[in-house]
Amino acid sequence: MRFIKNVKILIVGLGLMGGSYAEALTDFGYEVGGLARRQEVIDYALNKGLIRHGRISADREYIGQFDIIVFALYPHVFIQWLEDYQEYIKSGALLTDVTGVKGSVVYKVQQLLRKDLEFIAAHPMAGRETSGIESATKEIFRGANYIVTPTDKNTAEAIESCKELGRVLGFKNIMELSPEEHDEMIGFLSQLTHCIAVSLMVCKDSRHLVSYTGDSFRDLTRIARINENMWSELFLLNKDELLKQMDLFSEKFGELRNYIEKDDIEGMKEMMRLSTERRGYFNE
Amino acid sequence: MRFIKNVKILIVGLGLMGGSYAEALTDFGYEVGGLARRQEVIDYALNKGLIRHGRISADREYIGQFDIIVFALYPHVFIQWLEDYQEYIKSGALLTDVTGVKGSVVYKVQQLLRKDLEFIAAHPMAGRETSGIESATKEIFRGANYIVTPTDKNTAEAIESCKELGRVLGFKNIMELSPEEHDEMIGFLSQLTHCIAVSLMVCKDSRHLVSYTGDSFRDLTRIARINENMWSELFLLNKDELLKQMDLFSEKFGELRNYIEKDDIEGMKEMMRLSTERRGYFNE
Repeated sequence: MRFIKNVKILIVGLGLMGGSYAEALTDFGYEVGGLARRQEVIDYALNKGLIRHGRISADREYIGQFDIIVFALYPHVFIQWLEDYQEYIKSGALLTDVTGVKGSVVYKVQQLLRKDLEFIAAHPMAGRETSGIESATKEIFRGANYIVTPTDKNTAEAIESCKELGRVLGFKNIMELSPEEHDEMIGFLSQLTHCIAVSLMVCKDSRHLVSYTGDSFRDLTRIARINENMWSELFLLNKDELLKQMDLFSEKFGELRNYIEKDDIEGMKEMMRLSTERRGYFNE
Repeated sequence: MRFIKNVKILIVGLGLMGGSYAEALTDFGYEVGGLARRQEVIDYALNKGLIRHGRISADREYIGQFDIIVFALYPHVFIQWLEDYQEYIKSGALLTDVTGVKGSVVYKVQQLLRKDLEFIAAHPMAGRETSGIESATKEIFRGANYIVTPTDKNTAEAIESCKELGRVLGFKNIMELSPEEHDEMIGFLSQLTHCIAVSLMVCKDSRHLVSYTGDSFRDLTRIARINENMWSELFLLNKDELLKQMDLFSEKFGELRNYIEKDDIEGMKEMMRLSTERRGYFNE
């Protein structure tokens, strides 16, 4: 078991997710370092006690001291970083990430990685509508899901260490899926729902509707406040799966529209009974 | 001002909404009677102290004693009831309703009504995912909106009395719209959102997804638990407006799909920035 008390952990990228990881791991007792692009981010993290030390440039000696490295970067930045700086990493170190799509990232990373390093992918299914280290808090992990997506290149020890990391961070459920299963699931549960929320929100300049709005519209559009840089990248990295899920939704929405247009009250009711039954599985 | 302490109020239909009205009005000090189809509903309402007395059939003498009558019935049942029993109502009584669509109901009711009665339409925008008097509670009105939809047949006094009723029930916002404005607003904010939730929920037999589900999917499908009898009727009573709103949504959803398919990252970001800005109006 690699994930023991005296390891040193480096967080690369101190945004909402990296900052929240840093807080949870520091509070648990680890020595946590941080890499960020701007000094004020490092200063903020130091002042808040999220990290013990940090750097704004990839320093060979600094990076070389860590046993575990968590990449909390945009996917394309993550891959670029590895290409540029993986030579600085200590032999035998364990690498993991927080990326919201897996198939288009995991295999690429494992292929370009030095053979004496291991990358085990994970997706912490947590977040907030606001971004940046100022929004970071380990509270976002409470009650949330943490999914490890190993490939046949991963060792049992690394998989177990990654799950242990999820437990240390405070996630409620620690699960394992293949990258492909993960991407299908996330395409439906997360990306499609964000597409729906965004589309609904841009239908109208809804300012005049605010005072009439009950819970339904608010619930459906809460996630329409969205980090456009991150999500547009994630959508394209899971494009085929997402388009499939969008088309499935459009088909069902079109069916319902058809029932309404044709006054097919039985068709409507049938669909509503099914939706009521299935929503029942999810009762909080 | 007609809505004074010593009036007697009859609630016709003791379901979720009628029962909740009864509780709020009784607690406020009014003498509230109830009409329901089944004796166990009357018994339940009496036992819980929601009403002071009740009947299971439309009795001329009983009905004739009330100054204000609230119809908490399905729209087609409401209109049928008036056709059958309006002759029993005391001259000068004020009638109101809770119906979720207005244009297709209000004018019809005002036209068929005796000239010595006044009907002022209202839509209490409150509800729960469960129905029936067992779910009734005046708590559903807290923080919610109450919309009065007068026509040129209504007197200023009746409009004011109806607003006063909303205040007594405990609604947060009391507003006034024309039936047409109301139906457009409700078609978009409420009916379209329910169509989206139902369509999303029936996409898959999602039982295997429950453990991976974060807040997004739960938020978007909360209202997919739906009373199929009531909502299918409401959808058809607002069919033209609802189809218009569904088509608007489909258009935007299709635009986003197109951006994704064509790797048009700027198109996506533009849409997400707009959705983020507009969702900002609704910040709780």
